[in-house]
Amino acid sequence: MGAAMGAAMREALGAAMGTAVGAACRGLLDYKTAKFALTRNRRVGLLHRLLQLGVLGYLLGWVFLVKKGYQETDSAPRVSVITKLKGISVTEVKDAGNRLWDVADYVKPPQGENTFFLVTNLIITTKQAQGTCPESPSVLDGICREDADCPVGNPVVRGNGIKTGKCVMFNTTHSTCEIYSWCPVENDTLPRKPLLAEAENFTLFIKNNVNFTKFNFSNPFCPVFRIRDMVEAAGETFGNLALLGGSIGVYIKWDCDLDHPAALCQPQYSFSLQDRNYNFRTASYYWDPQKRHYRSLLKLYGIRFDISVHGQAGKFSIIPVAVSLGASIALLGAVTVVCDLVLLYLDSKADFYRKEKFEEAKPPKDKAEASV
Amino acid sequence: MGAAMGAAMREALGAAMGTAVGAACRGLLDYKTAKFALTRNRRVGLLHRLLQLGVLGYLLGWVFLVKKGYQETDSAPRVSVITKLKGISVTEVKDAGNRLWDVADYVKPPQGENTFFLVTNLIITTKQAQGTCPESPSVLDGICREDADCPVGNPVVRGNGIKTGKCVMFNTTHSTCEIYSWCPVENDTLPRKPLLAEAENFTLFIKNNVNFTKFNFSNPFCPVFRIRDMVEAAGETFGNLALLGGSIGVYIKWDCDLDHPAALCQPQYSFSLQDRNYNFRTASYYWDPQKRHYRSLLKLYGIRFDISVHGQAGKFSIIPVAVSLGASIALLGAVTVVCDLVLLYLDSKADFYRKEKFEEAKPPKDKAEASV
Amino acid sequence: MGAAMGAAMREALGAAMGTAVGAACRGLLDYKTAKFALTRNRRVGLLHRLLQLGVLGYLLGWVFLVKKGYQETDSAPRVSVITKLKGISVTEVKDAGNRLWDVADYVKPPQGENTFFLVTNLIITTKQAQGTCPESPSVLDGICREDADCPVGNPVVRGNGIKTGKCVMFNTTHSTCEIYSWCPVENDTLPRKPLLAEAENFTLFIKNNVNFTKFNFSNPFCPVFRIRDMVEAAGETFGNLALLGGSIGVYIKWDCDLDHPAALCQPQYSFSLQDRNYNFRTASYYWDPQKRHYRSLLKLYGIRFDISVHGQAGKFSIIPVAVSLGASIALLGAVTVVCDLVLLYLDSKADFYRKEKFEEAKPPKDKAEASV
Repeated sequence: MGAAMGAAMREALGAAMGTAVGAACRGLLDYKTAKFALTRNRRVGLLHRLLQLGVLGYLLGWVFLVKKGYQETDSAPRVSVITKLKGISVTEVKDAGNRLWDVADYVKPPQGENTFFLVTNLIITTKQAQGTCPESPSVLDGICREDADCPVGNPVVRGNGIKTGKCVMFNTTHSTCEIYSWCPVENDTLPRKPLLAEAENFTLFIKNNVNFTKFNFSNPFCPVFRIRDMVEAAGETFGNLALLGGSIGVYIKWDCDLDHPAALCQPQYSFSLQDRNYNFRTASYYWDPQKRHYRSLLKLYGIRFDISVHGQAGKFSIIPVAVSLGASIALLGAVTVVCDLVLLYLDSKADFYRKEKFEEAKPPKDKAEASV
Repeated sequence: MGAAMGAAMREALGAAMGTAVGAACRGLLDYKTAKFALTRNRRVGLLHRLLQLGVLGYLLGWVFLVKKGYQETDSAPRVSVITKLKGISVTEVKDAGNRLWDVADYVKPPQGENTFFLVTNLIITTKQAQGTCPESPSVLDGICREDADCPVGNPVVRGNGIKTGKCVMFNTTHSTCEIYSWCPVENDTLPRKPLLAEAENFTLFIKNNVNFTKFNFSNPFCPVFRIRDMVEAAGETFGNLALLGGSIGVYIKWDCDLDHPAALCQPQYSFSLQDRNYNFRTASYYWDPQKRHYRSLLKLYGIRFDISVHGQAGKFSIIPVAVSLGASIALLGAVTVVCDLVLLYLDSKADFYRKEKFEEAKPPKDKAEASV
Repeated sequence: MGAAMGAAMREALGAAMGTAVGAACRGLLDYKTAKFALTRNRRVGLLHRLLQLGVLGYLLGWVFLVKKGYQETDSAPRVSVITKLKGISVTEVKDAGNRLWDVADYVKPPQGENTFFLVTNLIITTKQAQGTCPESPSVLDGICREDADCPVGNPVVRGNGIKTGKCVMFNTTHSTCEIYSWCPVENDTLPRKPLLAEAENFTLFIKNNVNFTKFNFSNPFCPVFRIRDMVEAAGETFGNLALLGGSIGVYIKWDCDLDHPAALCQPQYSFSLQDRNYNFRTASYYWDPQKRHYRSLLKLYGIRFDISVHGQAGKFSIIPVAVSLGASIALLGAVTVVCDLVLLYLDSKADFYRKEKFEEAKPPKDKAEASV
């Protein structure tokens, strides 16, 4: 009896455990699918289909066709720019007579990088040596009437040197502080017309190389532009900009669709006026036979060109397709929300549909507690 | 009878087809809406509403108000920077006596771009000519005791020239290899105080132009900074940095809310010390009356300023509003998951709710197969 | 009776309002949970669990482990680069005899920024003065047979000066237009081997500092490279590139995982050939004892190095974890769609499941209208 009971108990336990494990397994592999109320409401059904068609149209037309949402993109290409200017200009400068300018003279710096300055106008002060001389009358803090106006040791505010303590005559009409500086001081009178006016016919060669590493795709492009054309494309006339200088941005934009032949991938160039009035001072240094150190001071006005390159290349890839599809699936969910609102609140039989959609589930009341 | 049957058949076919087509049409326009169990469980309901309020608060407070999620942004403006330094400094250099430095002397390069170097200290070696002379004793590989230490033709490691094969006296205390180089070699002893100490009072004018092409909005801004203030804002004192040089980053950050008046859009400036110890060598070349080519070698120490501009502008647009709303709708879905977990596993009547939510759907058993 | 009725009415109103308010409150706090059909279909259930495991594996393996999706990233660090070249080279140039080149001679510009040019070959034309001389026969537009070929005042196309109107003999074999230019014109014959061939052994020291402001983390790194090694890493031999010049990009990539010790964060260097053929012209200006202004024209060939730094740092943060989890929840929704398709259209009992899932909800027909 004991053995039989033991066997029976073991059998029961085994069956129970088996049942428990079996129940767990079955629970794990059960598939739950959301229940839907199938209405025959053709008005809301039609609205639903129209909205779905709208989402499909948006996906195919806008996301895929226009925005190329099926492509993986590389928006950080490696770019390199080499520039070279060509042209000759002859200027007539008061102190220096006729002077010819070629590319080694008018491009600063000369290395042909993506940023360079083209001289269009200038003020030359040759043979400056360190010593004392009257400050320029165009400097406000340099104007004086007596020595007390020029306290020794003070730098002239926005001026050319250090006051020596004396007020001297600059010319018959002006008296200015004597200063220790590079002498004589610069005569800050700009020529009324740009000296290098022929610079408008100079040509700029841009060698522009772009390399999209993600797709192992390189493309060089080498256009030649006339300076005047670039200035006019930026909305200014060369004569105006060349007098006091300025700054022009050259934007090179690559937009390559690598699902098409590579030859179709050409950059677009646009020009934009960044600034008016651009000048800086630079000097060349010399020793004369008497061993004195002197310099030529040049106040250069001109046009600075800043070339910047941006690019993007795209190629078909399955992951962007999946992401775009996923985004559209989310939109379809939003469409359902709209149609539900119409069905449950605007339709003539809205009350009925609300009851069909929301089945009341009231748990049985205990004596001990109400359904809270 | 045949005709009648034929007609009947045709009628039936037509009706059947019509029914089939009609059934297809009706199937297409049926609207299916998910069924819900409407519990009167106020605890979970309250939790649900609180979580929904939380999501709404996050959307309105954080996404819209703080992060301005209703705005379309342009984070790649076209920027241009023009700089100009002003100031005068007088130095007393051993070989060259008093020397005045103005902007054409102490800014390298002079073009006024976004990166420039301000000389604060220097070692000048004037009148170097190519020839043979003793290497500097500060170069380890140049130290020698006999000619065999100086194999002819070898460049001095981290030195100034090519060994000639002879070991000569540099001065009474040191013997160094004789080298073919620009002679005499540089005496690498730095002044104990920065020579251009007055550079701390120089002023830097930054003309900074930003153009957000997406919104066709431009804004120039032109502050003036004192050099000492910029160095101190970067956390260093001018005297320390000027002795051996350094490098300071100037960061200009534009953050424009174009839904407000444009005048409120002003950039923020911050300064950061990038490096200590910065110097480089440069030379000026001369011909003396005897037609010999010689140069002045300058080892310049100073502060390099790297100005970089970043900007972002935002303006109201309906698409970011829709995207933010969509993200919040996804969050609401997550809220539902949490409340479901509470309802189905934590509530006192969880078992009942689970039965209500998951209605068992068991297909009728065939004799041939069990429900697998 | 009136009072009683009034009281009764007030009681009824109060009860009604209370009921209305109570109904509204109860409606607000009701919790609706989606109803599911619990199928015992183990095949679809197994498919569902497998797909869920796939999504979990993707989340843990790909998103978290490989792509580090639990980290917040800073991809816009502040970077600064200082460079310094070292080395000596001796050249033998026709007009100038032996000449030694050190760093002040062969690096343009000398400031040690992230872009610099290393001279490897050159053509020197010393002592050019402005005047008239024959154009170079290598310029096509300068070739002439008679004076009429050289209209006065016209610049020579891609040439060195302005035509004076005369056709003169350049040498015994060529006649070219006489031009007003810097004379004598450059003899554009390049040496057959790079003059500064020893430049391949020069060393480049790069001091590269990166600062991730988001995580307040800085790291400097200071390697030294041999020029020849960099050129070979870019896939070219130094001898080839040095003859006509070229341009090499040096890419420094920082990828820091700040959940690990900072010392593990070291940058990677890669080199890429951007361009072949790179040269530019520059000049040094002199005054001779007779006060004539003249210049030395140098056509420099060499290798331009463009150093660019990019970086990214990541650190654990709860928000990216939440975003990755949210994306995975969306994927689980897509998994459900797939399993539903299998259940409702491919399973043997598909018809039954469709009926279970979509419960027909037909509103009662009115006499006035059919169910439209």
